[in-house]
This record gives sequence, C-alpha cells and structure tokens, in this order.
Amino acid sequence: MKVINIKEIKESLDIERAVSLQEEGFNLYSKGKVTVPPVGYMNFSEDVGEVHLKYGWIEGDDVFVVKIAGAFYQNLKKHGLASVQGIILVFDAKTGQTRAILQDEGYLTNIRTAIAGLVAAKYLAPKEVTGIGILGTGVQARLQAELLKLHTNCRTLWVCGRDQNKIKKYIHDMTAAGFNVSSVQSTSELCKNCNLLVTTTSAKQPLIDAKDVQLGTHITAVGADAPGKQELDPGIFRLADICAVDSKSQCLDHGETYHPYQAGILTPQNLVELGDVISDVKLQRQSKEQITIADLTGISVQDIQIAKSVLFS
Amino acid sequence: MKVINIKEIKESLDIERAVSLQEEGFNLYSKGKVTVPPVGYMNFSEDVGEVHLKYGWIEGDDVFVVKIAGAFYQNLKKHGLASVQGIILVFDAKTGQTRAILQDEGYLTNIRTAIAGLVAAKYLAPKEVTGIGILGTGVQARLQAELLKLHTNCRTLWVCGRDQNKIKKYIHDMTAAGFNVSSVQSTSELCKNCNLLVTTTSAKQPLIDAKDVQLGTHITAVGADAPGKQELDPGIFRLADICAVDSKSQCLDHGETYHPYQAGILTPQNLVELGDVISDVKLQRQSKEQITIADLTGISVQDIQIAKSVLFS
Repeated sequence: MKVINIKEIKESLDIERAVSLQEEGFNLYSKGKVTVPPVGYMNFSEDVGEVHLKYGWIEGDDVFVVKIAGAFYQNLKKHGLASVQGIILVFDAKTGQTRAILQDEGYLTNIRTAIAGLVAAKYLAPKEVTGIGILGTGVQARLQAELLKLHTNCRTLWVCGRDQNKIKKYIHDMTAAGFNVSSVQSTSELCKNCNLLVTTTSAKQPLIDAKDVQLGTHITAVGADAPGKQELDPGIFRLADICAVDSKSQCLDHGETYHPYQAGILTPQNLVELGDVISDVKLQRQSKEQITIADLTGISVQDIQIAKSVLFS
Repeated sequence: MKVINIKEIKESLDIERAVSLQEEGFNLYSKGKVTVPPVGYMNFSEDVGEVHLKYGWIEGDDVFVVKIAGAFYQNLKKHGLASVQGIILVFDAKTGQTRAILQDEGYLTNIRTAIAGLVAAKYLAPKEVTGIGILGTGVQARLQAELLKLHTNCRTLWVCGRDQNKIKKYIHDMTAAGFNVSSVQSTSELCKNCNLLVTTTSAKQPLIDAKDVQLGTHITAVGADAPGKQELDPGIFRLADICAVDSKSQCLDHGETYHPYQAGILTPQNLVELGDVISDVKLQRQSKEQITIADLTGISVQDIQIAKSVLFS
C-alpha cells in the first residue's frame, strides 16, 4: 500500500493526461459503464461539520475508488486548518487489497472540478473568447480561470465578488498567473464584458439575471452542488440553446438545474450529459450566437479518474 | 496520520480493555447514542467479490470510524490471498483530519465478532459451562472458543463440521490452544454434549434442530450476517427464554432472527438488545434451566470501539 502525500500528488499530476482521463470518465458515466452507489452522509452537530463518502467503479477497471471528504466549519477559526478535509483510497478491484491512499487535502477534488469546467468550455464555449468572467473569489474562482488557459488564449479576466479584500487578493494572484484582471461591481457588468462565465459561489439566491446574458455566452455553474444552492436566474435556462449537466439525475435533484426544473422551465429531455456532449459533435456548440450552460455537481467517476491520473502517471 | 500494520495492531491490542470497550459500545448503541448510517455496498461481477462500507460515530466521541471491507472469492485460488480484505480508517470528529489507517486485513473484524460472542456468553450462558460446542471449523470457530476462555474455565470443546481435513486441523490447533477437543458427527450429538454452543457457518438451511436443544443451553449464532443465511431451526426461538440480538433492526432484516420473525414465531417485542442485557441484570440469565440465544449480525459501533482499542491503548 502506497501512501501518497500532497507534495507527491502535485508532482505526479500531468494535467493534460488528467483532462483526457476526465473526458473518458464523463463519457463512460453517460454510457452507463460506471457503478455509482448512493453517496453516504454522516452529520456531526450542525456547527461542526459533515462527511460524504463517494465511491464507484468503472466496469472492467483494475481499481475502485472511495473518497471520504468533509467540511468542518470551525477548522480555520479554531484549529488553523482548511475546512475541507479528506482522503481518496484506491483499491484493487480483483482482490480488494488497498493499493494507495492519496492524502490530497481536498486538492484533487478542486482540480477535477476545475477540469470539468475546462471540458465544458472546450465543447460549449464560443471559439473566440473575448473575456472570462468569474463570479466568486475562492479556490474554484482561481482554478477554473487557471485551467481555462488550456482552452483559450484569452487572458482578459473579470471578477465579481462581495469582499473587497478578497477581490484585491484575487487580482494580485491572478495577475501573477498571467491574466489582465479587473473587477466589476455587478454581475450585469460581468455579463457585458465576458462571453465565458464561471460561477463559483455558494449562493442560495440567483446572482445572474436572464436579462443580462448576451447572445453567444457560455456559463459554467459549479457552485450549486447541494440542495438549496442557486447562482443563476432560472430564466437563463429558457434562453439557453444547450443545457449540459454532468449527471442528469444529480443535477435535477440538487444542482443549478433543479430550480428551472421545479419551475417547469425545462424537462429532463432538454438536458444533455457532458459525457454525451464530448462524444457527439452535434451536441456541441453549433454557432457563435448560441447561449450554453454547463451545470456541474460533481460525480464519483471524476474522483476515480483523478486518482488514476496520480497513480498511473 | 498513522499507518498501523497488522503486526502493530496485534501487539497493541489489550484484549480485556477491548472487551470492556465493546460492552460500552453495545450499551451506547442500544441507548441510541451512535450515528449509524446505512451500510454502503458495491458489487463487482458475481464471482469476483463485493465491498461494504460501514461507518459511524458515537455522540461526543473525538473520532469517527469508516471500515471498508470486502470478500473477494478468487483471492485464495488465483492470488494466494485471504478472501476477506479491508482497512479501518479513523478520523478526527472535530476537524475531519485522518488520524489513522489500520491495515488489519480483517483481523479486527474477526476479533470484535468473537468478543461479541464472549459478551453474550458472559451475561446469558449458564454459570457452569459443561461443554463448549462449536459448529464450523473456520476463523470464528477458533476465535470464539479462544475468547470464551475469558469467561469460563471449561476446556472441553466439541466440534462439528463437514470436512474431515478441516476438523483434523481444527482439533490440532485447538488442542495446542489448551482445549480437550473431540469431534462429533451430528449437531444432535453436539447439543447433547454442550450447554454453550456457538454456530459459525455460512449455512443457508437450519443445522440445529429444536428437538435437540436441551434445557439450560445458550446458543450464540454468528453465521447469519446477510440475507439468505440461516443456522438454527426457527422452532428454537419458541423454546428460548431470552432472545438477544446485537441490533433489533439488523437481526430482523437479515439475521438468524429474520426466519422465526417471518414464520410468526416471534415479534420485535420478544427481542432484547445485547446493549440492554449488559446494563440490566433482569434481562440476563435468571436460572440454570433457561434456554438463551444471542443473534449477532455485526454493527459498526463494534468497529468504532475495536479501532479505539488499538489506537488509544
């Protein structure tokens, strides 16, 4: 059994290979080739935290993967630790033996989530990106922009957030990462300046208005990953030519897509899974003017594939 | 994060302390103080194997525990490995950080299961044990007898099994462990010679007849831990003065108790949980003549407590 720490994980991750494994994962998931048991939950008292167990196996794979990850809300304040904690375990699917323990400290979940945003942009965003707009100033706000470099040469980055100190820090960090960064006061301005938007907040009310979304815009929504969360005006789904989701069942249950579904704006038939978008050019962006959405809630095949990216590099 | 291998686990396990932690665990479980989410399952193809995820947290405890264990049926034949595989993970319940990984190779599950048998005997078996009867010749057939040494001075051991080679090996090993061991040809003989019986097989048909069970017998049934398994004639439950179970909900769902429950021989009100037996002398054996049963299916609080026995020794 190998125990692989965060430094080794970062060193052994080849990002281009990881991207292609993620694409393969989405594709196999949408083809029904992935065993994905229901997520396991355990809650501690409300202000302490919660733990999720996500696990799965790709038919025919040599390994299966279990991710045990949680959020512990008092970590930063009380213990000086990151609130997200967890490990990924890789087992031999023929013998059950533990092959590796990845002490990723949430890093691999962040990376695979950002790669999903890149994959969505690759097949759905307009060819010519005139401006990248990021809603939020946290980890995904950084990683999503960073990964988009693999898709576009556009380095014009607009950020919209609530906390001036966090915006300042974001502008500093992303300038160092090679972007020309400006902040905007409103999501309306964000929509005006960008045709590739990524929303990364934990908002529980819509932040982006349908009336602000311009023709030819792609929006990747990664914030809504649990019941109650919402970043987009459901009306945007009425405008959208393509509504892609990582998983139909998950997104209808607790993703961004839940809200327009509840409002009767869309039916499951209006959705297309990212795994199908990847493999079928007819499901990808067809014109400069289309409005496209990708709703990403996170599925265990992403964890399987990112673990394999580290282990079998 | 500590990684503790099987050798270190065996060295650090103080069995008497482990027993008292197990008793505490059963007690807290029956008091409703243990969070026990549903067991997670993942099946590979039928002849390869299956994996179970058991996890839980005792209210107020510093740690929570996740056990990932499985049976891989071709391990011995194809790979020279034990069919049971798995690890136990211990996490900090306040911060979510991984504290320890116990590479127990199924050992701790075996030990905690045998300790449960000892605990059942302690409160339910007759004071004077005249003979210990073991049905089966596998790991539990050995460990259950071994652990019973902590409860009784009786070293008269009777074994009943199907495979003559395995019986020979069993007699050899258990003689070395300090018992006077004899084999019997039938469970009827086993019942005649013993007043403390432990059934440890994976049988799917009753092996012990109600008519053979004598007054003053205690039976611990550990074999039936999944749907379809059965070792006892349901009629034995009609004779029993005390029907103890580790968990009412589990035993009625897939334990030995499932069968008399289905047959209308008992209702949930006839059952008593081991955790309550431990703490209430009125629920324990009251006379030499009583017939008592303990049905043990295995609950995650046992895994929590056995992990703590190793970690905090």
